[in-house]
Amino acid sequence: MSVIEELTTELAKLPGIGRKTATRLTYHLLKQPAVAVTRLARTIDAVVERVRPCTVCGNLSETEPCVICADGRRDSTLICVVEEASDIGAIERSGEYRGRYHVLGGRLSPLDGVGPEDLRIGALEARLADGTGVREVILATNPSMEGEVTATYVRGLLETCGVRVTRIALGLPMGGELEYADGVTIARALAARREMGDG
Amino acid sequence: MSVIEELTTELAKLPGIGRKTATRLTYHLLKQPAVAVTRLARTIDAVVERVRPCTVCGNLSETEPCVICADGRRDSTLICVVEEASDIGAIERSGEYRGRYHVLGGRLSPLDGVGPEDLRIGALEARLADGTGVREVILATNPSMEGEVTATYVRGLLETCGVRVTRIALGLPMGGELEYADGVTIARALAARREMGDG
Repeated sequence: MSVIEELTTELAKLPGIGRKTATRLTYHLLKQPAVAVTRLARTIDAVVERVRPCTVCGNLSETEPCVICADGRRDSTLICVVEEASDIGAIERSGEYRGRYHVLGGRLSPLDGVGPEDLRIGALEARLADGTGVREVILATNPSMEGEVTATYVRGLLETCGVRVTRIALGLPMGGELEYADGVTIARALAARREMGDG
Repeated sequence: MSVIEELTTELAKLPGIGRKTATRLTYHLLKQPAVAVTRLARTIDAVVERVRPCTVCGNLSETEPCVICADGRRDSTLICVVEEASDIGAIERSGEYRGRYHVLGGRLSPLDGVGPEDLRIGALEARLADGTGVREVILATNPSMEGEVTATYVRGLLETCGVRVTRIALGLPMGGELEYADGVTIARALAARREMGDG
């Protein structure tokens, strides 16, 4: 296999990139100045070398803890629980949230073999028990079936720990992806958060 | 700018990849094992280091000359002229062509400031004059306005050099891209090639 075919194969492994798009991208890169293409490779290396999950919240970060956990001006009594680190950027762009985060690293999905032990739920319970005075947990898992199930499960676990547990308002359409929602929608959904009932 | 934002910026420079897709790809890469992501970076490096235009035909290659120019079983009396090296793969996949190639490196485009001196047209004339007995030049530039203009221009240049000049049959729809055509269409278009008239 030539290195051109190898690069096409590597690019075709990316989500949403088929064989033809991968071929097009490969030849695009071949037409660019070497310095520009090398910069892409170096940036990929830098991400692999430098980015780690924050040990406190699970956010992907170059620092330990991440800039949000390290920021003393942020409200440490408020924790927003999201499925993926990429959801944090979406909420931050809304400019309406000044608390902390907790990344679960996925969602409950029995069909895919993802159970509670595969998510960072134990780490969330530990944060609530460490005496730093968390007063509210906002469940901002995706507005999908699995995101709802995950929110309900986490709420059940936290019921006895004396912390207010709310759900981000589902102003987002069911089946949508939090990561791609616009800031206004996210801000409105955060403002309309409600106590979680039993259903 | 964090390295995550840097990678998103680099990926968003690729054609057809907007900011949201670049963000999605970045977080996809962040979820992959480091070894897989590093392999992508190494493959990009390998392409930059190893791939060069063949000095004979302009094909992008790891060898000098390229495997097609070095293959003694291929008909050296037949040269197929294409706009880009990526077009060669498309014609090879048709399995119907056994001659050589010549890559122009683009097409005539006055609006983009691309004139004859920006293309490898002089190198084509040199190949025809070097005494290796080329008997036919097939012009397989894209079936677009600019591809047609380029073919007509090259045909005019070669008129006096005693070589048969043909145009790949335009079975491809106008405005299409040769690179993405299927093999059957390309094979049929090659078989139906015709002498170039004056129009």
